[in-house]
Amino acid sequence: MTSTAAIIGGGVIGAGWAARFLLHGWNVRLFDPAPEVQARTAQVIDRARLALPGLGDVALPEAGQLSFHGLMSEAVAGADWVQESVPDRLELKQTLYQTLQDYMEPGVVLGSSTRSFTPTDLQAMSKRPEQIVVAHPVQPVYLLPLVELVGSDRNGAAVMARCVDVLEDIGMRPLQLRAEQPAHVSDRLAQALWREALWLIRDGIATTQEVDAAIRLGLGPTWAQSGPFEAARIAGAGADMARAMQAIAPELKAPWSRLTDVPDMDAALARRIAEQSEDPPGVADLAMLEDARDASLVAILRALRGRNQGAGAVLARGDARRRAEAGLASTYAEITSPEQPVPTVARAVPLDWLDYNGHMTEARYLEVFATATDQLMDLVGCDADYVASGKSFFTVETHIRHIDEVRAGAHLAVTTRVLAGAGKRMHLWHELRSGDRLLATGEHMLLHVDLETRRSCELTPVLAERLSRLAEAQATLPPPEGAGRHIGQGF
Amino acid sequence: MTSTAAIIGGGVIGAGWAARFLLHGWNVRLFDPAPEVQARTAQVIDRARLALPGLGDVALPEAGQLSFHGLMSEAVAGADWVQESVPDRLELKQTLYQTLQDYMEPGVVLGSSTRSFTPTDLQAMSKRPEQIVVAHPVQPVYLLPLVELVGSDRNGAAVMARCVDVLEDIGMRPLQLRAEQPAHVSDRLAQALWREALWLIRDGIATTQEVDAAIRLGLGPTWAQSGPFEAARIAGAGADMARAMQAIAPELKAPWSRLTDVPDMDAALARRIAEQSEDPPGVADLAMLEDARDASLVAILRALRGRNQGAGAVLARGDARRRAEAGLASTYAEITSPEQPVPTVARAVPLDWLDYNGHMTEARYLEVFATATDQLMDLVGCDADYVASGKSFFTVETHIRHIDEVRAGAHLAVTTRVLAGAGKRMHLWHELRSGDRLLATGEHMLLHVDLETRRSCELTPVLAERLSRLAEAQATLPPPEGAGRHIGQGF
Repeated sequence: MTSTAAIIGGGVIGAGWAARFLLHGWNVRLFDPAPEVQARTAQVIDRARLALPGLGDVALPEAGQLSFHGLMSEAVAGADWVQESVPDRLELKQTLYQTLQDYMEPGVVLGSSTRSFTPTDLQAMSKRPEQIVVAHPVQPVYLLPLVELVGSDRNGAAVMARCVDVLEDIGMRPLQLRAEQPAHVSDRLAQALWREALWLIRDGIATTQEVDAAIRLGLGPTWAQSGPFEAARIAGAGADMARAMQAIAPELKAPWSRLTDVPDMDAALARRIAEQSEDPPGVADLAMLEDARDASLVAILRALRGRNQGAGAVLARGDARRRAEAGLASTYAEITSPEQPVPTVARAVPLDWLDYNGHMTEARYLEVFATATDQLMDLVGCDADYVASGKSFFTVETHIRHIDEVRAGAHLAVTTRVLAGAGKRMHLWHELRSGDRLLATGEHMLLHVDLETRRSCELTPVLAERLSRLAEAQATLPPPEGAGRHIGQGF
Repeated sequence: MTSTAAIIGGGVIGAGWAARFLLHGWNVRLFDPAPEVQARTAQVIDRARLALPGLGDVALPEAGQLSFHGLMSEAVAGADWVQESVPDRLELKQTLYQTLQDYMEPGVVLGSSTRSFTPTDLQAMSKRPEQIVVAHPVQPVYLLPLVELVGSDRNGAAVMARCVDVLEDIGMRPLQLRAEQPAHVSDRLAQALWREALWLIRDGIATTQEVDAAIRLGLGPTWAQSGPFEAARIAGAGADMARAMQAIAPELKAPWSRLTDVPDMDAALARRIAEQSEDPPGVADLAMLEDARDASLVAILRALRGRNQGAGAVLARGDARRRAEAGLASTYAEITSPEQPVPTVARAVPLDWLDYNGHMTEARYLEVFATATDQLMDLVGCDADYVASGKSFFTVETHIRHIDEVRAGAHLAVTTRVLAGAGKRMHLWHELRSGDRLLATGEHMLLHVDLETRRSCELTPVLAERLSRLAEAQATLPPPEGAGRHIGQGF
């Protein structure tokens, strides 16, 4: 049954939560009295629809339903998760929780997006403190996987386990903190850097744009990949980590005195920052910045997905969990209809696959077909272990007919026919569809090779048997329209 | 004439500089008395050869020559740049500079990789202070483009301009600081965050791996893309930046008290960090971490190259500067031999283009051919302005014959023949080579389309004329071997 999330507060954070829940198949009820909440939420969800579904390599479930509610009681009654993202004022939150708890189910979690307060703060005036936790995300909520999960000693282990389940279900990585404190971990780290950056601006050592450059061109890419401790371990180049740490002790004490002061954010400093940031931005400017942010974040997160590292490892875990639901077999035995073309890809078009024509660019058609080939190889037994044992397939020939266009966020599915699989060869036929639309066909000839000699060799018996069984079972289908053609015959 | 850099000190920083200069076509002379310097430098350069040449989209010049020298006089005599990367002790550096200046040319820059000292510190005992500057890189020096460039008032504008020229020539982005101070900008920011991270470890709020996760899954990707100020501007979602800054003033003063203390790095804290980081690492572990770091950094930097943002914009500028030298025409008039296949790609294989078979993966063959098609389109007049005016080409059919394999860092070149270009069609033939080896052929049929209706339409006169002129000029060549074939005929 479809789960339901109630989102209390429809600012940029609340709308981000709404988008993340929706696109992971939850129904979402949004409560916010502001008149512009529907339009504002729609904007965030439109962005998320382009950027989120294609982040991983396996399709998300069908999106849920969004509804807006003027009554809190209506929004939270029967909901499976309640997420509060109202402004960060303690009394406001404590009062709000009393009303919410009148209508919420007692066993349901009430997560707060607060950055400033601890669970103990939030639970203080509550009749059921055990259901209140901190679940603090980072912006944009629909793209970045981090969520800081904090409980007090009044939350039981079962509640915390339920939180992990739900947050992982919507593609996040809950970082469960070991102690309560304001600003949690991520914002404490951010503010330390941020405060130092303010001194640099105030003292005229760098402009805001120069500080941004210093981060974007060095620490940012490094930290996206490894975080500071792993980076230090690598930079130490083999030195014992304890010794490396003690070696930096003098630096920590060095008289870089601004490091330990708090700058005074007076009007002059605020104005200088605004001017250097070319502020105030027009609305159009800001939308362009948001477009650029999403596209670049998607590109970075997908780069990490390809490497299965950092945020990419979170995406990989989500993909693995969704394979069966998306209709992808994980073993040869799971191929339920061998006489039909085998489903080999079920995914969405990533935002970074578009080109200047506004549609999925041609090379990504082959990337999709190559993934389909890999999946078919995997199913018939040419998996990672097989490759490690010294044999694999190399593609020697490819014929793609590009039949129709497709845009970011759209669903893609490939089915694969084995035209032949015997001797040293495998001959495949892929069809790529979005819904009912045929987007492309791919005809591919592969040779089975010995990775030592890099020369072709006979298929091993298991592969030969499985491939020929699929080829025979599928031979009863009419021959694929377009196979065996040369360029110029196809259209 | 080939320029020469003298690298003084062959640790991981010095070797990184050596690799960067070498792979940008400089000869490099390395001075370091340590017996293991040659083997250690070779390791770093081997890594750089895989990772650096494919970072951008245009080939680097041919690599320079590396030599090792036991005498400083021999290393620096006649060199065009001297880069010092010895341990960060002021007296050591000041003494060293006296010897270096005895043998260096007076007009040549002596850059120091120091993180702790200012140019005024370094110049104090020197006979020619004007030639000494700080040029502080980040690790890995051969991949990340940031270099902090700092002068004192004793360095003239001509010296600083020369620094910018040289550092840009080796693919870096010099960030010229407005004032001297220890730790420059990047390390001040890093240390602020680092100190806060140490408190989190010491207070048991998070482990080193949890701090790394908090950064990798949120702030890291964000900062890689935008830096902190631009991120704040977007997160503020349209609020006036000055007002947004003043709104955070109370947070800056909030009693998150650890923020302003310096933790004591005693043996217990150092040991805890080492244990949590799974330290000490075996050498093999560390090499694996370095492999993973380089591959992920390359993937992130290339993702940003595709977006022309942050570090990607630095790569794009380098590419633009090298096009002519790499033999790529930028206008139709620059096609010097229209009767020959047109050079359309000159690049190296990026590290993130490899697959489980250890070679460039099949989809990247089409990516290279698609780039070649784009370049040909651009030359005949279907450029960004033309696309913006509402017309473009869509590929409708592709036939690739994969003939040979290629590895990371190897040079790739595509030449393109126009088989036909008339009516609504363009028929292209690409050949992909690495040196003399033919790696693949690509036959592509494209339709000229109206981007409004998404339907095919006649070529405009300029395009038709240029395409048919190329097709006619090249028609005297023998027909390409393999064109017009269908799958299975090719081998």
